Amino acid sequence: MDTDLQQFSSLMLPALEQELQRAVQQAEQPRMEGLGAMIRYHMGWEGQGSGAEAGGKRIRPLLVLLCAAAAGGDWHAALPGAVAVELVHNFSLVHDDIQDQSPLRRGRPTLWTLHGVAQALNVGDTLFTLAQLAVLRLADTVSLEAALEAGRVLQETCLALTRGQYLDLSYEGRTDLSELDYWPMVSGKTAALLSACTFIGARAAQAQPATCQLYRRFGELLGLAFQAQDDLLGVWGEATATGKSTASDLVSGKKTLPALYGLSRQGAFARRWAQGAIREVETPALAAELEAEGAREYASAAAERLTGQALETLAQAQPVGEAGLALNELSRRLLKRAN
Amino acid sequence: MDTDLQQFSSLMLPALEQELQRAVQQAEQPRMEGLGAMIRYHMGWEGQGSGAEAGGKRIRPLLVLLCAAAAGGDWHAALPGAVAVELVHNFSLVHDDIQDQSPLRRGRPTLWTLHGVAQALNVGDTLFTLAQLAVLRLADTVSLEAALEAGRVLQETCLALTRGQYLDLSYEGRTDLSELDYWPMVSGKTAALLSACTFIGARAAQAQPATCQLYRRFGELLGLAFQAQDDLLGVWGEATATGKSTASDLVSGKKTLPALYGLSRQGAFARRWAQGAIREVETPALAAELEAEGAREYASAAAERLTGQALETLAQAQPVGEAGLALNELSRRLLKRAN
Repeated sequence: MDTDLQQFSSLMLPALEQELQRAVQQAEQPRMEGLGAMIRYHMGWEGQGSGAEAGGKRIRPLLVLLCAAAAGGDWHAALPGAVAVELVHNFSLVHDDIQDQSPLRRGRPTLWTLHGVAQALNVGDTLFTLAQLAVLRLADTVSLEAALEAGRVLQETCLALTRGQYLDLSYEGRTDLSELDYWPMVSGKTAALLSACTFIGARAAQAQPATCQLYRRFGELLGLAFQAQDDLLGVWGEATATGKSTASDLVSGKKTLPALYGLSRQGAFARRWAQGAIREVETPALAAELEAEGAREYASAAAERLTGQALETLAQAQPVGEAGLALNELSRRLLKRAN
Repeated sequence: MDTDLQQFSSLMLPALEQELQRAVQQAEQPRMEGLGAMIRYHMGWEGQGSGAEAGGKRIRPLLVLLCAAAAGGDWHAALPGAVAVELVHNFSLVHDDIQDQSPLRRGRPTLWTLHGVAQALNVGDTLFTLAQLAVLRLADTVSLEAALEAGRVLQETCLALTRGQYLDLSYEGRTDLSELDYWPMVSGKTAALLSACTFIGARAAQAQPATCQLYRRFGELLGLAFQAQDDLLGVWGEATATGKSTASDLVSGKKTLPALYGLSRQGAFARRWAQGAIREVETPALAAELEAEGAREYASAAAERLTGQALETLAQAQPVGEAGLALNELSRRLLKRAN
């Protein structure tokens, strides 16, 4: 039998996909076919390797719609908000790929490698704009006030995203970092958008302000917990569970929670990090060193604590019925917990 | 004696600058000093070569404020809209400079040359977000409805900007273009933002919908006229009038109205264009060839017609008092007409 999450997903995802496609069509006009084609490629709808996997899991918009339902509303009314967060997410991916010079995204060549930096940058700007247009359509499905409030939250989120990105870029090559430098970065890069998702869902359901704030806080904690958990798996995870090779985050030099903790210890790990790019072959010993210095315990405790706080905050918001169960399930899945 | 425009400018520009600085402060937080510093450098407030010239002429926000006053409103209420259009303008400049790999902007090194593509791209995204946040503050100074409507128009404008940018980039290296390819590009790249300025000003003044539409159309025509006029000066202008060397637009390969007209004639100009970069020394002969093929007459007639239509549309909107006179003066100055 399908779980609650599967049942909701099978209703929500096709409706979402249709609304996303409609939003993207706004960018298209005669002479603009190429712009639309680049967006549709990135969204996973077109071109080589297109399909459900190429588009990503659409977790953020699903979170919007589930929160709308769990807060007692009709999730259909929240669709413009769901579209907006997914477009913001994709805008940030397109620009991230340029900034990191990443060749691949979800197993396919990134836009900038196919069409150059200039066009890809412009596609990102277009997705950003479409997101801002989408969120204001809550004026049609909910109310003027809801649209304006959701718009403000989404824009504050984008500001947090750019702040987090600034920090991430400015950490490049620095060795004087500690775990204290981690939280403001992931607040911006991960938690802000998840907290916008949960807030916008509740707000679209016309939930009380206090309830909307609980949902917002739930999303924020969920984001922080997710990132800490993901970082743990990136260093000590099983390749089968993550789809990435174990310890790949050490090789890529990603500023994970364990790595930043390790830097602040100024031990053997920090000395090796300062010497430049880490090779695959070194990672088992380096991961063991990091663990011996206490990084694994520190990150595990943080992930555990944040996960508990997230689920507790969700419970305080008193999500209703099967949507509440589905939301719990999605959270646990996102946190890669078995139950 | 000061003209009306000078009198309004001396009141409006300091107030605008203060609001702009306040808007930008939103991006700053502890640890984010570097992000704020990059923005303040680009805005002309800080760093080597800072000062009034480094910030540009602030024509767009001035247009917002003058339209608000000319439409019978208190221009102070329109300040959030003025801030928003100036931030959108600057977002597009920061990203344009990356896309065009331009080394200089207003005589100073561009952000990407100083801080790299990744950070500069992120500064552009930050300015974009700050603009979207600013426009919604019209909810505090005017009304919810005005904020939402202005927000929508601003976002449609950003969409038009990205469409225009797509066309400009996609014209690169093409020789099968004509003057028909010019208008959709400049509609997006120049006219859309000017029409947002004039609309948002009138809307902030709570003008009637029909009047707001006249202002919007006025701004659009003003933008098209300005670009056609600017393109003419870029090929046949006096160096003293434009501050650029004569015919520099031919050397830079810019897709101006005369150049696109010349391409469609498929004559000597088009053949030379197809052979690649034009050297300074060739420009006098090439400009003469372009004139002989009818490009100057065509572009002049277009600029003349659009200018007339713009000023006529403004008159239909019945701008009031000295603000109306100042708006007329700003338009004529923008169109580089003597009277």
